[in-house]
Amino acid sequence: MLRSKVLSLLARGASTRMMSTGTKLTTVEVNDKTGIATLTMCRPPVNGLNLELLQDLKTSIDEIEGNKSRGLILTSSNATIFSAGLDILEMYKPDKDRIRAFWSQLQETWLALYGSSVPTAAAINGHSPAGGCLLATSCEYRVMLPKFTIGLNETQLGIVAPKWFMATFLSVLPQKDAERALNQGRMFTTDEALKVGLVDETANSKEEAIAKCEAFIGSFAKVNPLARSLTKLQFRAADLQQLENERKQDLEKFLFFINQPAVQKGLGIYIEGLKKKSKKQ
Amino acid sequence: MLRSKVLSLLARGASTRMMSTGTKLTTVEVNDKTGIATLTMCRPPVNGLNLELLQDLKTSIDEIEGNKSRGLILTSSNATIFSAGLDILEMYKPDKDRIRAFWSQLQETWLALYGSSVPTAAAINGHSPAGGCLLATSCEYRVMLPKFTIGLNETQLGIVAPKWFMATFLSVLPQKDAERALNQGRMFTTDEALKVGLVDETANSKEEAIAKCEAFIGSFAKVNPLARSLTKLQFRAADLQQLENERKQDLEKFLFFINQPAVQKGLGIYIEGLKKKSKKQ
Amino acid sequence: MLRSKVLSLLARGASTRMMSTGTKLTTVEVNDKTGIATLTMCRPPVNGLNLELLQDLKTSIDEIEGNKSRGLILTSSNATIFSAGLDILEMYKPDKDRIRAFWSQLQETWLALYGSSVPTAAAINGHSPAGGCLLATSCEYRVMLPKFTIGLNETQLGIVAPKWFMATFLSVLPQKDAERALNQGRMFTTDEALKVGLVDETANSKEEAIAKCEAFIGSFAKVNPLARSLTKLQFRAADLQQLENERKQDLEKFLFFINQPAVQKGLGIYIEGLKKKSKKQ
Repeated sequence: MLRSKVLSLLARGASTRMMSTGTKLTTVEVNDKTGIATLTMCRPPVNGLNLELLQDLKTSIDEIEGNKSRGLILTSSNATIFSAGLDILEMYKPDKDRIRAFWSQLQETWLALYGSSVPTAAAINGHSPAGGCLLATSCEYRVMLPKFTIGLNETQLGIVAPKWFMATFLSVLPQKDAERALNQGRMFTTDEALKVGLVDETANSKEEAIAKCEAFIGSFAKVNPLARSLTKLQFRAADLQQLENERKQDLEKFLFFINQPAVQKGLGIYIEGLKKKSKKQ
Repeated sequence: MLRSKVLSLLARGASTRMMSTGTKLTTVEVNDKTGIATLTMCRPPVNGLNLELLQDLKTSIDEIEGNKSRGLILTSSNATIFSAGLDILEMYKPDKDRIRAFWSQLQETWLALYGSSVPTAAAINGHSPAGGCLLATSCEYRVMLPKFTIGLNETQLGIVAPKWFMATFLSVLPQKDAERALNQGRMFTTDEALKVGLVDETANSKEEAIAKCEAFIGSFAKVNPLARSLTKLQFRAADLQQLENERKQDLEKFLFFINQPAVQKGLGIYIEGLKKKSKKQ
Repeated sequence: MLRSKVLSLLARGASTRMMSTGTKLTTVEVNDKTGIATLTMCRPPVNGLNLELLQDLKTSIDEIEGNKSRGLILTSSNATIFSAGLDILEMYKPDKDRIRAFWSQLQETWLALYGSSVPTAAAINGHSPAGGCLLATSCEYRVMLPKFTIGLNETQLGIVAPKWFMATFLSVLPQKDAERALNQGRMFTTDEALKVGLVDETANSKEEAIAKCEAFIGSFAKVNPLARSLTKLQFRAADLQQLENERKQDLEKFLFFINQPAVQKGLGIYIEGLKKKSKKQ
């Protein structure tokens, strides 16, 4: 994979920059002035990562790569939620084929985002637990709005974040902090996330967050794009390769855990809680 | 080992919580209210880690795992020494069979503590050089009393801390700091240890240190214990596996070095110094 | 390599300490009082790392190892440049045999410096881009004079810093900072370098920088030299071994990139710029 990626980077010819409308559950807007693409997740109510949103994310990432955009900014159309993480409905009493497609697509989407050849940044304009945090930490830079939370809180749901979630977190935090946070399933407030280095900056509005992401991507203006993307890939190659090598085992491990009666029961209770909460509002 | 550990975690049934008296050289007390076990080393005069203390530590760790305790707090019955590290008398003019048993037991005890499925914390109520520091850094959290020292000072004794001591240190400190400290055989004061991140908090008494360790272990209260322990294991698997794979070579390497005439001579001088110091008092 | 290195460390006998004059492009001075060797690069105008300077550096490092010096301080005879990095003239329209010798020598010199058995420190008394930064970060300690810059800025030249440059940088900085800096080809000012931990101290003169390097090396005074060097080697073994295992591929990769027409064109433009700048002065 990595070898063919390197070759395709070397072979990539020029292509026209264009405004794009993205897919059903995501939009892609390219700023004509900066050449930077903003990829917005828009699956109400909470950007739950189901099979279709993950597919659309992958399609949009590929499109941005193909467009020779100068960078990718990931954000949300929702005013208070970046992404609520994996859609629990995909995992509760799952259809056997669909859940395999779902997890495989999550792997694909992560491989595309974490290994993206363009500079990536997340404008975290809302809560970002679990899978939402995975997407944000797969980017190279993070700007977060105040009074939200972010973290890999899988253990709180009785789930084990797989090895590549761990690797992604370790690309951002020191080992001691990363292990402790994952063990605790800790959700960091914006201030805590800034302090520990989980996010790089804060911003008071989505516009300001996007502007700061653009400034980060602008820091590559004088850099050779090919040399830059190969350098990034070199840092991330071991993590990417590990999942490539273990995709099947990783899928089987996920299926084994998710089908544990205790985990299914926990998800059921969680979903009931969400329904009651939703009725009250 | 890791696979069977995962399976045993999955299979582990409920068991009764109980007060326990531990072994000859350690005590285990389970707090009925919190469900947290305090494992106390009590081998006068300095908690030197000889074969028997290492065996007793392993037995007590196993007991705490089996008791389904909510956590393990490691501390010392000595007022000024957490543990003085490996008992030098085990290494000076050693019996051929006993020194093999000694080192193998150190490996076993470390594998049990570093890979423990329960949350672990060290209440460092005294000096903690070498093997004492290894035990403390094998835990997930450290609270230390003022005016003591901690560090892997092996190079000062002409000994090389093995790879898994290094890995343990690297789970707590950044690479640059870890390498420099081990090369120097640096002993950190409580304040220095706090500043560099070698310990997480300080406390003014053993009781306060234990209370802070309990608070840390309490941070896992709402977390699924199985998911938590598998997450921890995932972070530590590579380090654990490396020693599992190299136990024999690691033992032979230790024996080779310890039997160097220069090292034996150094240990002899050190022991003479201790005797003189002891007579003066 | 590592095994034979360990054995040679064990076998190394005493040897006389002496004043030395070094090679054509480097000088080695051993302080009789401290036993510390200062290795000075002196290839005007900018200590460009060509084949001969790299050979001389390797010869001088070997000499210092053989002299049983207590430490090695790397510095420059130039008042404003530590080292400008790899000599671009070695890479522009290169002779086929010479460029192979050049890159192989860079590998050799790095293996010798990064894996040196004596304590190493860099007195960075001038700008230190690219290969200059590689040399400085291969040392265990860095003291830098104000108002200079340091960094691995390869991407700015369209070049990819190879894996072992990355590993060297990662031995000094956290992963997130290291990846970002290499992707950006970022040059840090002295103050920025101090803040991020890329250098350990600043000094107002070369003399003060050397004195601070001596103080660092003095921190090993009470440490067993053999245990110290084996401990250092243990931390660096994986990085050293990786290049040992991949030397041929690493060379071929470098040759492939350097011979890309776009890279050659970029080097040509860069050289023209230097010539014009030089004429103006």
